[in-house]
Amino acid sequence: MTGIKQQLLSMVQGDLDRIETALESNLTPHLELVREVAGHLMFAGGKRLRPLLIVLCARICGHEAPFVTKLTSIFEFLHTATLLHDDVIDEASMRRGKPVANAVYGTSVTVLTGDFLLARALRIAAESESLRIIEVVAAMTEEISQGEIHQLIRKGDISITEEEYMDVIRRKTGVLIQGACNTGAILAEASPEKENALTQYGDHLGLVFQIADDILDYTADTGELGKILGADLREGKLTLPVIHALKAASATDRKRMEAIVVNPDFTTEEFVELQGLLHRYGGIEYAKNVAAGHVRAAKKNLEMFEPSETKAVLSLIADYALDRRA
Amino acid sequence: MTGIKQQLLSMVQGDLDRIETALESNLTPHLELVREVAGHLMFAGGKRLRPLLIVLCARICGHEAPFVTKLTSIFEFLHTATLLHDDVIDEASMRRGKPVANAVYGTSVTVLTGDFLLARALRIAAESESLRIIEVVAAMTEEISQGEIHQLIRKGDISITEEEYMDVIRRKTGVLIQGACNTGAILAEASPEKENALTQYGDHLGLVFQIADDILDYTADTGELGKILGADLREGKLTLPVIHALKAASATDRKRMEAIVVNPDFTTEEFVELQGLLHRYGGIEYAKNVAAGHVRAAKKNLEMFEPSETKAVLSLIADYALDRRA
Repeated sequence: MTGIKQQLLSMVQGDLDRIETALESNLTPHLELVREVAGHLMFAGGKRLRPLLIVLCARICGHEAPFVTKLTSIFEFLHTATLLHDDVIDEASMRRGKPVANAVYGTSVTVLTGDFLLARALRIAAESESLRIIEVVAAMTEEISQGEIHQLIRKGDISITEEEYMDVIRRKTGVLIQGACNTGAILAEASPEKENALTQYGDHLGLVFQIADDILDYTADTGELGKILGADLREGKLTLPVIHALKAASATDRKRMEAIVVNPDFTTEEFVELQGLLHRYGGIEYAKNVAAGHVRAAKKNLEMFEPSETKAVLSLIADYALDRRA
Repeated sequence: MTGIKQQLLSMVQGDLDRIETALESNLTPHLELVREVAGHLMFAGGKRLRPLLIVLCARICGHEAPFVTKLTSIFEFLHTATLLHDDVIDEASMRRGKPVANAVYGTSVTVLTGDFLLARALRIAAESESLRIIEVVAAMTEEISQGEIHQLIRKGDISITEEEYMDVIRRKTGVLIQGACNTGAILAEASPEKENALTQYGDHLGLVFQIADDILDYTADTGELGKILGADLREGKLTLPVIHALKAASATDRKRMEAIVVNPDFTTEEFVELQGLLHRYGGIEYAKNVAAGHVRAAKKNLEMFEPSETKAVLSLIADYALDRRA
């Protein structure tokens, strides 16, 4: 565990405990199997980043209420729903160090449990009786599904640009993190300036998390990652390190990289060769720099808030987003 | 086309046209592919029953507004979403006389387009700014996914009871039809008595539609049905005609039926044999009687309304639900 993670955990343990209890009690399916399938993934050590952001963003605007904790479940349910459907789509084998739900329970139950979690999330949003929160949650869900489809369409296409990549990750990962921050601010009835700052913070933070995730796919080891290294590439997902390196490479090296990239059955040797080329052409470094720019931008949006422990935690989360190992 | 259908169509053609236009204009995906996949099923000749029920139930309570037409899309989007996911789950081959979307576009895009439609439906519900409608829509979505999972769990299990069957079809089909009627009444700000009557009407109507559908799987021909005869049984779905006949049959015949029912690879001869046994033990007739009881109950709930063309249409829909050929 890195220093930042340990420091963060010590500061938010109470919140995490309350979030965890709420997740358990808000699931309320009629069927035990739904709890089992949802729990297989949801209670396998997620970071609870999105729930935590709601609590922190509400708190930094001076709002604290048990109902906030209940609403945090919306974002973890939505997140879990997209991961369940993702794993069906990607035919992934591992997630959070465990076999994926569809490998254990089959595609059908996994798809339907995702649907249930989606619906449950929207039902809890409805309970907020806040039309703005309901609109945020519904809009997010719509964006996410389109981001996923966009990514799917572009699978294995080496012509994807950095701009398009940013657009996809903003939709598929960013909106949920941004939405969590936005929801916290709405709950606190924050001023438009504060709400906007926290939403911007969430936007940058979301990008950092996804870019860091995409970097880890080339730099972590399987044990740290909880899934198989190079999984993105094997699924045909071209991410920032590759997109940049392909652009920067010599004609010969680009050809070689393309040959590896378009073949989902690349060998371990070929993957190591690709890692070497990503480093040579600065793909990893470039992606880290882009992410670091968003860490700075995220923190800049916190400047208008008075110093507090909550502000320190939000700032640390931005650092952690890039520095984490998994 | 049966007489009732023709009569009905002539009475609601204007509404159907407006519903159709709204469906096209409310889809608004970022990606052309989403329109294509959603349209593959949605514009392949659906009955638009659910949208129509909203319009009619609002109208019978004296409410008429362009916004009602917009909200009808919610129910067709939700319905299409569940059908898309259903076809993935059932590994069906045909729907509405066409290959299913997942056979044409693949599982991944189909699952995600279903997610998009689900989200789009909830987004439009949010636009209603009516917390009650939002709650109805979110609750329905939750119920449907659980009904589907329940059905999935009980697949191929010959011990399923009539009570459990009714519970499953109420969740997976009934709630959407009931929800449409309820939404129409809410939009019209109907009195609690009228709202309750229309919701009850919808509940009974939903049951009729599903039981009739389940009967057709044993009595229609493939051309009428737009899908393969005996498809339910091949997917392990035990429906009312079978459930009743199994209970009524002699020990020997029950054994024979069970042998056919539990084998998804039954031959055409075996299916014909099963049809014969269903008739002998009154399974088809019993199911028709149960459905007819719900037709009567549906109509009974219309009694409190003054005579009008709208009332006549709602009454005809109840008749049509049972008498239709597909």
